Amino acid sequence: MNIIKDKITLEEMKIIAIDIKDIRFPTSLRSDGSDAMHTDPDYSCAYVTIRTNDNIEGYGLTFTLGRGTEIRCNVQDIFDDFGSFWRKLTSETQLRWLGPEKGVIHLATSAIVNALWDLWARIEKKPLWKLLVDLSPEQLISTIDFRYTSDALSKDEAIEMLRSELAMRDSRESCLLRDGLPAYTTQVGWLGYGDEEVRALCAKFLDLKFEAFKTKVGLSTEADEHRCQLIREVIGYERMLMLDANQVWDVDEAIDRMRTLAKFRPIWIEEPTSPDDVLGHARIARELRPLGIGIASGEMCPNRVVFKQMLQAEALDYCQIDSARIGGVNEILAVYLMAKKFNVPICPHAGGIGLCEMVQHLQMWDFISLHGSKEKRFIEYVDQQHQHFENPVIIKDACYMPPSMPGYSTKLTDSCLRNYAYPNGKEWQRMFKEGTYPAPSD
Amino acid sequence: MNIIKDKITLEEMKIIAIDIKDIRFPTSLRSDGSDAMHTDPDYSCAYVTIRTNDNIEGYGLTFTLGRGTEIRCNVQDIFDDFGSFWRKLTSETQLRWLGPEKGVIHLATSAIVNALWDLWARIEKKPLWKLLVDLSPEQLISTIDFRYTSDALSKDEAIEMLRSELAMRDSRESCLLRDGLPAYTTQVGWLGYGDEEVRALCAKFLDLKFEAFKTKVGLSTEADEHRCQLIREVIGYERMLMLDANQVWDVDEAIDRMRTLAKFRPIWIEEPTSPDDVLGHARIARELRPLGIGIASGEMCPNRVVFKQMLQAEALDYCQIDSARIGGVNEILAVYLMAKKFNVPICPHAGGIGLCEMVQHLQMWDFISLHGSKEKRFIEYVDQQHQHFENPVIIKDACYMPPSMPGYSTKLTDSCLRNYAYPNGKEWQRMFKEGTYPAPSD
Repeated sequence: MNIIKDKITLEEMKIIAIDIKDIRFPTSLRSDGSDAMHTDPDYSCAYVTIRTNDNIEGYGLTFTLGRGTEIRCNVQDIFDDFGSFWRKLTSETQLRWLGPEKGVIHLATSAIVNALWDLWARIEKKPLWKLLVDLSPEQLISTIDFRYTSDALSKDEAIEMLRSELAMRDSRESCLLRDGLPAYTTQVGWLGYGDEEVRALCAKFLDLKFEAFKTKVGLSTEADEHRCQLIREVIGYERMLMLDANQVWDVDEAIDRMRTLAKFRPIWIEEPTSPDDVLGHARIARELRPLGIGIASGEMCPNRVVFKQMLQAEALDYCQIDSARIGGVNEILAVYLMAKKFNVPICPHAGGIGLCEMVQHLQMWDFISLHGSKEKRFIEYVDQQHQHFENPVIIKDACYMPPSMPGYSTKLTDSCLRNYAYPNGKEWQRMFKEGTYPAPSD
Repeated sequence: MNIIKDKITLEEMKIIAIDIKDIRFPTSLRSDGSDAMHTDPDYSCAYVTIRTNDNIEGYGLTFTLGRGTEIRCNVQDIFDDFGSFWRKLTSETQLRWLGPEKGVIHLATSAIVNALWDLWARIEKKPLWKLLVDLSPEQLISTIDFRYTSDALSKDEAIEMLRSELAMRDSRESCLLRDGLPAYTTQVGWLGYGDEEVRALCAKFLDLKFEAFKTKVGLSTEADEHRCQLIREVIGYERMLMLDANQVWDVDEAIDRMRTLAKFRPIWIEEPTSPDDVLGHARIARELRPLGIGIASGEMCPNRVVFKQMLQAEALDYCQIDSARIGGVNEILAVYLMAKKFNVPICPHAGGIGLCEMVQHLQMWDFISLHGSKEKRFIEYVDQQHQHFENPVIIKDACYMPPSMPGYSTKLTDSCLRNYAYPNGKEWQRMFKEGTYPAPSD
């Protein structure tokens, strides 16, 4: 942290402004992203820009479905003890009541924290995954608040885990740069799509060499069977099929419904019930594992405390971290470390706005510095909204290729900001005028 | 539901307006309510008024610490199938993403739902506890959404539970009207108070015939021991002492710290760790029960799904429902019913703004229609902010006496609205001008 910059030293660098914009895309008009619970999502984000007195900016966002702090401090103070700064943000003595560490207030934490990581990576002129990889085990661990998780993983254990992987770092990095990390597609299975669209999309992603396909379920038994049958007809039984119920079932219902769908040999059922129900997930897992079906969950997991319990209760076979729901990179690192200890592979939740752009960095750090395996690990991929980012993801042979530009890939293009800031962006104004989309009521 | 009103029939009654006000009280100036986690609370509420075309109004509020839907429908449609209406509110297809069913979005649900119950009770010209008692088991159960809890308690079981208590209803109601329900005081133990203040408050509440006293802990071991010693000296060892750590400990730390404090013979330790940590609470409970210390938690429990697990995992000895955090009366009724099945007494969280006013109704319904016992059941009591309500709680011989006026006791006085609406109320403007309290920064 003692690198001298051209104009200003890191010691002198201060955050002088934070800007927040409401960016929305009218994806509900085409049923993109629709599932049993969220029938009309407008993929949207709260977009945070943090600017320093050296004019370096960091960009962060949290992802939402549409309807919907002042900080002035020394940059080096934040990054030198990022774990303490994170606790200050999440323990603000009045705001904490509104969570704690969950819901809207935690989404806001995520957007700010992610912008800080983007800023740090831009200062260091590295993509985020490389910044993470290059931090020493002690530096990396100093960014994490171990409150409420020390009974599952101590700070010393975490450092030891990272140390023991250091020798493999360079060879894994070469492997990553050459081959990237495998993706799976959710694009083929939005619930609002018709049969022909599903069939065409399966064919498209087969051509793109994808080996794993996910579809939404959670309508009637007949509709779910029809959808699974349709996809299996196109992709065959050698490729992987994942199912996602988006929380619509009760515990016993999930078990019954998945027994019926077991014949389609899905590798996982995702969000079979309430995302808060650790014991429910554990019971569903015990019933379905003998059928070869694993349990996946995490995109709605409110924080590291619930992830910890999911792991302790053996409720997950695939841990789906989300880059924008829990409190940003710091808290996600804690989940990766716990997942390593409990030997559960991580398959990040992505899609939405910028989630693919972000989670690839985390999974690449994990591959190099922690897990070192591609087995049972896929990053979700949806082929939408990437064009709005300055450094969109690059997919090659159905793999995410490592980003090379500095930052967390979270910077939106200027034209996106002009067009999709809600409700005054050009595109929104055009849609309100044309009647394509209803104008806000007040 | 077919009662003909003077001017307008219930079938014709519609909700025509919803108004929301931000009401705050500068309680942080005196450290009232302070604990280890929340050091400077300004007790506040989002205050919802719902008006019908018959000019009947309902008032609801959710309680917050300060820094911070349009509905147009037929009233009868809501109350005839309140469970379905509740699910619509909590499953709004875009807003659900911001929770789901937790944090800010769920606090908002609570305020609206509580205003609807107040409205219903005012239409029926009954205090809420009496409205609840007079509903048939089937009607009462129809207000509850059983999604995610059916594995712990089915709708039929719940109806049967209520039916089996019907015969005792009249005698319990007489008992309630005569004696009320026992309270305990938290007033003596705010963490920011000095020794003399604590001693004087203990003496005051002894004079008022209180038998149970709670203090905050969670500072250093020495400070906690000092506080417990001080209170035991005044109240003796025949009366009950409760401790509240407000989430500051990790799991192992909670166990260690409470082993040290066991000599003061507290009946419970409240919020020993993260309110989301079901498995952590269960482990703490297993370690501390042999020492005679029970586990209390619930004021930060985000929803019925986490309460369900707390009960399933035998993590609670005292279940502390909160009237304003989970989604209003409907969801709280589900928790009462589950607690009955798992044989755990409920001791509602109160204090704050209007929480005492609300929870008394719930506990009184519970006494008459469900649990029928006062053993191990106390309603929290704090002697502050009651003067702002039109029908404040009445405490007699350390017992809550049943309210007789129609509604949920949630209506604030007009002068309170004029003085404490934030930031334009007269009192706030005065404090900003005098410099007693800093004005908002923008």
